[in-house]
Amino acid sequence: MKFAVVGTGVIGSGWITRMLAHGHQVIATDPSEGAYERMLSQVKQNWPYAKELGMSECASLDNLTFTESLAEAVKDADHIQENVPEIEELKDKVLTEIDFYARPDATIGSSTSGIMPSELQQNLKHPERFVVAHPFHPVYILPLVEIVAGQNTSEATSVAAEKIYESIGMDVLHVRHEIEGHIADRLMEALWREALHIVNDGIATTEEVDKAFTHAAGLRYAQYGPFMTFHLAGGEGGMRHMLKQFGPALKKPWTKLVAPELTQDLYDSVVEGCETSSQDYSMSDLDKKRNEFLVKVKKLAEEYWPEDTPQMKKSTGQSVN
Amino acid sequence: MKFAVVGTGVIGSGWITRMLAHGHQVIATDPSEGAYERMLSQVKQNWPYAKELGMSECASLDNLTFTESLAEAVKDADHIQENVPEIEELKDKVLTEIDFYARPDATIGSSTSGIMPSELQQNLKHPERFVVAHPFHPVYILPLVEIVAGQNTSEATSVAAEKIYESIGMDVLHVRHEIEGHIADRLMEALWREALHIVNDGIATTEEVDKAFTHAAGLRYAQYGPFMTFHLAGGEGGMRHMLKQFGPALKKPWTKLVAPELTQDLYDSVVEGCETSSQDYSMSDLDKKRNEFLVKVKKLAEEYWPEDTPQMKKSTGQSVN
Repeated sequence: MKFAVVGTGVIGSGWITRMLAHGHQVIATDPSEGAYERMLSQVKQNWPYAKELGMSECASLDNLTFTESLAEAVKDADHIQENVPEIEELKDKVLTEIDFYARPDATIGSSTSGIMPSELQQNLKHPERFVVAHPFHPVYILPLVEIVAGQNTSEATSVAAEKIYESIGMDVLHVRHEIEGHIADRLMEALWREALHIVNDGIATTEEVDKAFTHAAGLRYAQYGPFMTFHLAGGEGGMRHMLKQFGPALKKPWTKLVAPELTQDLYDSVVEGCETSSQDYSMSDLDKKRNEFLVKVKKLAEEYWPEDTPQMKKSTGQSVN
Repeated sequence: MKFAVVGTGVIGSGWITRMLAHGHQVIATDPSEGAYERMLSQVKQNWPYAKELGMSECASLDNLTFTESLAEAVKDADHIQENVPEIEELKDKVLTEIDFYARPDATIGSSTSGIMPSELQQNLKHPERFVVAHPFHPVYILPLVEIVAGQNTSEATSVAAEKIYESIGMDVLHVRHEIEGHIADRLMEALWREALHIVNDGIATTEEVDKAFTHAAGLRYAQYGPFMTFHLAGGEGGMRHMLKQFGPALKKPWTKLVAPELTQDLYDSVVEGCETSSQDYSMSDLDKKRNEFLVKVKKLAEEYWPEDTPQMKKSTGQSVN
């Protein structure tokens, strides 16, 4: 396949690395001064990690071309990935240009973190071939891509997009309804805002907040997300027991975020969802899987955690006053 | 040291495993029917994982005693850990009893997830020897303990508590000011509430939310918390650049949580905190450290992720309509 990448910053270079690593042709474009050199240097830095995760036999940096002309970059591409800065007017302008110069059968994906696809496709001549395809930094390592269809995206495009992103080793998550921030960034943004409140209210420093996360819940989240984590914390009763025990905490001031009502419908969705995720594993199988993983990830993380700095030690000592 | 553990459910059994694994004596007590057998079976299940993480030479299950009498359990203990259900009246009652029977020089830690220490110590004769010491499930693997002093906790107790929990292999985080949910659970609760909203609003199923987390941000959080993650996403400019680029997102509807104002003070705390955490590492050193870790943790997680279920595949396919 022939990919075009429009915008070659941190995210664009990440996409380029991933596309090349999977044996594809890539034409990149970016109008900013020195963009080519920066991009090339980044891709070369990323390359060993992509290699470590497994590369296609045809993977080669020689399959990369750069041009300053957007028209040139996109005109023969099968798929175009847009990664310009997160400013709606700029994205609109660039996407309109891409749409104008691209083949009508080419698909277009935007890496936007937060803007809804219906907004971005409204000025396109061929809005049906446009999706949001939101990756995560570093794009050449993290596998998730959220695909979000807009009101005018065709079903064929969503299906094609899934195949395209799978061909570069990604795990596709189709977002059922468009929403600002999609799914993963909403979760991260909630975490981030609570973390900012904690620092703002003088409860902890940024280092302490980070430690509170990495030395506890953060170790678990590479394996199980928020729902399965609580399902496993509920013992034999799983999520049913958890919601009974910690459901009332939804009314408590444990975060600045107001919770939804725990209606019967929501309760059922959550409990049944966790039971589906558990497949045929018993609670004790799941516990075992979790423990085996946690022991390994803890040993691994210990090698990579930043050391406690002297300042952190000092501030920790002071806080008991 | 002689530990007493009051309440031997999932958390209590976790503490017992950790205390025994570090070579201490433990007397456990719990009034519920069949508590002893359940606890013993759990501790035996936990034992191999504690062993894998490294045990003291004197570690032995023989150092564990169980009694139905709370008075008997606590009277000779150096430190008492309370883990009864998260109901304030019940905690009050049990802590008053512990306080009554314990040696006046014994320290008392409560595992409460959310209640503030000043609330819990108000009816104690010796409130000065009481702290909240909040662990994370599974207690015998995850190293963090949040120590929170109440208004009447003595400094000597906070210092002693740090030594006690370090003697059982834990990483202590002193919380500077008491607050409902302490630090780590506030972060988790924000994430959890946003996740519930997403399911409640029909944006995604629990399985999709979990996947959105584990296949992207969740892989990063075992190493770096929310602040360092964003610091590293900012390229050479680090957090300074991130706040410039994504600061405005604080005003956008990317989560249901209202953000604090990004004042100059908050900006400075966040930027300087990240720079302190970075120590003498350059951005490119930090990037390298992160990439090495991520490649390893991704390979590890792939072995332990639940497989996509057929139902998940099906619902994913439908969502493009």
